[in-house]
Amino acid sequence: MKKITIKFEPEGRKVETNPDQKILDVAEESGIGLRSECGGKASCGKCRIIIQDQSRVSEVIDLERNHLSESEISAGYRLACCTVAKGDLVVEIPEESRIRVRRIQITGMERPVKLEPLVKKFHMVLPKPTLHDIRPDAERMLDALNDEYGITGLELSQRLLRNLPDILREKDWDVTTVLWNDKKLVAVEPGDTSNILYGFAVDIGTSKIVGYLVNLVSGETEEISYIENPQISHGEDVMTRISYTLEGEKGLTRLQRLVVGAINSLMKQACSTAGITTKNIYEITIVGNTAMHHFFLGIQPKYVSYTPYVPAVKSPLNVRTSDLSLALEPEVNVYVLPCVAGFVGADAVGDVIASGVCESEERSLLIDIGTNTEVFVGNSEDILACSCASGPAFEGAHIKYGMKAVTGAIEKIKINSGSLEVSYKTIDNEPPVGICGSGILDGIAELFRTGVINNRGRFKKEVDNNRLIQQNGVKEFVIARGNETITGNDITITQADIGEIQLSKGAIHTGVAITMRRRGYTKEDLDHVYVAGAFGYHIDPMSAKILGMLPDIPTEKIKFVGNTAVTGAKMCLTSKETRDAAYTLSKKIRYLELAVDPDFQKEFVNSMYLPYKNIEEYPTITKLLSKETKK
Amino acid sequence: MKKITIKFEPEGRKVETNPDQKILDVAEESGIGLRSECGGKASCGKCRIIIQDQSRVSEVIDLERNHLSESEISAGYRLACCTVAKGDLVVEIPEESRIRVRRIQITGMERPVKLEPLVKKFHMVLPKPTLHDIRPDAERMLDALNDEYGITGLELSQRLLRNLPDILREKDWDVTTVLWNDKKLVAVEPGDTSNILYGFAVDIGTSKIVGYLVNLVSGETEEISYIENPQISHGEDVMTRISYTLEGEKGLTRLQRLVVGAINSLMKQACSTAGITTKNIYEITIVGNTAMHHFFLGIQPKYVSYTPYVPAVKSPLNVRTSDLSLALEPEVNVYVLPCVAGFVGADAVGDVIASGVCESEERSLLIDIGTNTEVFVGNSEDILACSCASGPAFEGAHIKYGMKAVTGAIEKIKINSGSLEVSYKTIDNEPPVGICGSGILDGIAELFRTGVINNRGRFKKEVDNNRLIQQNGVKEFVIARGNETITGNDITITQADIGEIQLSKGAIHTGVAITMRRRGYTKEDLDHVYVAGAFGYHIDPMSAKILGMLPDIPTEKIKFVGNTAVTGAKMCLTSKETRDAAYTLSKKIRYLELAVDPDFQKEFVNSMYLPYKNIEEYPTITKLLSKETKK
Repeated sequence: MKKITIKFEPEGRKVETNPDQKILDVAEESGIGLRSECGGKASCGKCRIIIQDQSRVSEVIDLERNHLSESEISAGYRLACCTVAKGDLVVEIPEESRIRVRRIQITGMERPVKLEPLVKKFHMVLPKPTLHDIRPDAERMLDALNDEYGITGLELSQRLLRNLPDILREKDWDVTTVLWNDKKLVAVEPGDTSNILYGFAVDIGTSKIVGYLVNLVSGETEEISYIENPQISHGEDVMTRISYTLEGEKGLTRLQRLVVGAINSLMKQACSTAGITTKNIYEITIVGNTAMHHFFLGIQPKYVSYTPYVPAVKSPLNVRTSDLSLALEPEVNVYVLPCVAGFVGADAVGDVIASGVCESEERSLLIDIGTNTEVFVGNSEDILACSCASGPAFEGAHIKYGMKAVTGAIEKIKINSGSLEVSYKTIDNEPPVGICGSGILDGIAELFRTGVINNRGRFKKEVDNNRLIQQNGVKEFVIARGNETITGNDITITQADIGEIQLSKGAIHTGVAITMRRRGYTKEDLDHVYVAGAFGYHIDPMSAKILGMLPDIPTEKIKFVGNTAVTGAKMCLTSKETRDAAYTLSKKIRYLELAVDPDFQKEFVNSMYLPYKNIEEYPTITKLLSKETKK
Repeated sequence: MKKITIKFEPEGRKVETNPDQKILDVAEESGIGLRSECGGKASCGKCRIIIQDQSRVSEVIDLERNHLSESEISAGYRLACCTVAKGDLVVEIPEESRIRVRRIQITGMERPVKLEPLVKKFHMVLPKPTLHDIRPDAERMLDALNDEYGITGLELSQRLLRNLPDILREKDWDVTTVLWNDKKLVAVEPGDTSNILYGFAVDIGTSKIVGYLVNLVSGETEEISYIENPQISHGEDVMTRISYTLEGEKGLTRLQRLVVGAINSLMKQACSTAGITTKNIYEITIVGNTAMHHFFLGIQPKYVSYTPYVPAVKSPLNVRTSDLSLALEPEVNVYVLPCVAGFVGADAVGDVIASGVCESEERSLLIDIGTNTEVFVGNSEDILACSCASGPAFEGAHIKYGMKAVTGAIEKIKINSGSLEVSYKTIDNEPPVGICGSGILDGIAELFRTGVINNRGRFKKEVDNNRLIQQNGVKEFVIARGNETITGNDITITQADIGEIQLSKGAIHTGVAITMRRRGYTKEDLDHVYVAGAFGYHIDPMSAKILGMLPDIPTEKIKFVGNTAVTGAKMCLTSKETRDAAYTLSKKIRYLELAVDPDFQKEFVNSMYLPYKNIEEYPTITKLLSKETKK
């Protein structure tokens, strides 16, 4: 019988199985965490899943209608216990139906900044109008702002004027005005509300959206929340989503609505937890990669995907909430951080700001590892940036047992030098289901360190161990044996998996090497190496050095900074100085197009080696390996 | 049988008649101009009328449905030949059904200005992006604007960025950018469109809206069009409309939509006649009285109608078309001229600008006569303004045979000194139907000059003439005898009519006298008297002086300037200098609140006299009258 493949999102696990099985059964057999309390009798209604292509599953049955509304059914909701898979399909497991929790890195390094948000509140009691003082409402308010606070030259907005007469009179001319950057009125509120001032900082990731609710009076982050990027239903990666926008006129509008809707939910949720309302959010700052940036702003993203990959804009932007349908007061400012290039987005600029690369004379390398890896090299004088096509292998894609970092994923691996016995650790210490990115890196680094593979990534012929097996003529190394895993199958690292990781790390090494060279730095010049991003946060620095993904520098110089994209956005929210720096940065960072660099081809070939073709670049690793050989 | 009153709009004619008659018959008997080609057989469908309160007329019959759509019927459309009046009601005669054309003054005095519109076009051919020149689209365009035209510091708008990538590539990087005030991007267009640049200037009058389509390359007005202000269905005067907004939350929104919809129609019509599209309009300037100003902007107008009558705002405003639902490109600027006070609006500021009162050292008096009369006194140094409640008598309201200035209205009257025989002129020389404002002024001035009434406006007892008749104990003077008029009834001026006009002219005289005094001017100081507005345009200066509505100054110093509100708006459209002057003006004009002036009561009492209590103020008129007496 022809097998079918079911992909479960957001874990990203692909399961090959026989057709005509209930999806709940397939999920349970494969260790996919899907809730079910009644054992598949359609009575608990907990095993809710979403299937976009209903042609690949059995039809909706009456039992499901007891638990799902008509609008849910038309949105693709099903019960997994009532739905039979007929062909290859993608099953989305919504938040409420998940057991296995995805580990995500939503916080990041944050430098202390001078607390000076661009939004400020001014409380005043205005003199009432009389026949002897007939100044209009708006001018009366502006006069008081000038008299009491010395503020002049404000722009008046028609939208604030609409209800201004009633607002001023609501508490008998006792009002608080909210100003942006001392030049624009954001809101006028009855009474004294000057102790309530919030902002929201957002990182729009390709897979998840993270939001910080920040108290702008104290500078503290009061709530951190995140949500899956709902655009995922139109493509898991950036390119698929861009293609989706080209299919029809409405595509871009739909992607924009999805992300804006998600941010609206995030804000509502965060405000509700913090006990405030979204009316108390007076500014919002946004980062995201260039495609997410364009989607969010509703800007045609097509040309980002065609050579020479130019974005529509890179400058920082101030946009009105209403132009984006954000559910905030109409004059609230949306500050969108600058981008650098088609593949170096505002999220990477957030990294640079949060890490402080741009403010120090010390020389830094900053790497934000992802499907696309951004590299920055420099200091306060000059920063060079490039982008490397590192691919989705670190997210588990194209890796036989690869998966995202969820409960049950093998995240750490050690291999014994002599026996090649393996010890591993899974997320949440559950029986293993697959291997996530950091686990794969560990595994391959260990295979190299213990001499199971050579510097070209090939399994050595001379190795003889029962963990090194062969399936359909392809060599694989068993990390977890069938009796340890949830599925009963071995979990292995294959020759092809190693090749995928070589391509990924090769791309990163190439980018780093060329950018360092063009900036005139050697690895000895580096004072700091910052590794940003959710994936980078969990990798073992030694494994990364063994594979040549990071330069061979002392581990103490390497700092894993986490989700600095969002902390960069937060810093731009709380500090005018930082925001001004972001503007300068957007003009200053020089983008290096690797494709036209004369060294690119050669460097890439050399970078495929473990750790690198010229091993003199990796003296510490060379020493470590030679020690191993002597054992 | 109890009579009913039918009021026909927009003429404003009230007809008292028996109930249960067809409205077409009432209209024809009363000389109301209503089309009908089939003689009332419901076959031509030309006698379309609009009745808001359908409870006061017979029900819709099948014959009407042959000519009216369902949506028209639900909007109140009827055929006058099929509709029987049951009670007092208002019948609106739409444009298409009118025979009698209302005379409106839509043009006005215009001073030559330096042609320098705030919107400008810049044509450029941009270098194409390559892997060696990966500047983003927006920055590429901004660089070219800087390189070719030296323009820097432009704000980028998210809404223009949306399609920018496609627009730049549409004609292979050959583009024209449109800038507002050298600092804001209004549009980007493929190819060279630099010879197409239009603006639109609008005067939102309480009863009509006038629009000028202006070619900003030549400075010429290419089309002038007008439309009835559709808000009239929610009240003929400003106060009734403000009351309407207080009835429910949606009232203000509805009034705003009506005026915006009317302006959209005006623009579409003007552009279509000129052979362009509304996309070629790059800026729009707006004037209107303070209530119209607030309605247009959707600003709470309530407090304009309560003492101390303060508006929400007086400063000039720049608003985006999209915030007002104007059917223009989203970044097009809407410039709204400043107001002075609750009863001195942006239309009056337009008058000041167009007349040049603010720019000359010569001393001027400017009067814009209407239901509310605005008075300005001063010169380039200092201008004082006030507002007089002159009432609707000049529009024919509260005048027995009063009507608006439509076909058949008596507009000029002469009375023979001895015989008291009357000669008159009607609009379009049709048989008389009633008397319009300028006719009433002439009539009363002539009655005073010929000694029929005394200086307190009372018919003199000693006058014995068959034109001076008495009805129900009230004296009336016959202007047109029944055999001359359409209705067969005499058209007269009554004692009450004279009283109404005395109140109106008294209010104006009071405002002028006090404002002159506070500015330190005597009538001898005046170099110019400007009379603005549609009504003012048609009055006889001598009649106005005889009644004391204008000061006793040589007629050659009096200039009837017409609809300067709209020409002021046009001048702000074509000239940056003028617009800057409007801004200065909005801060400079000092508003005088007559109600708190110590001289107000006494002055008003004295101003009720014809021409004035102290006749030394009117030496020329005194001389004229004494000549008459000697005859």
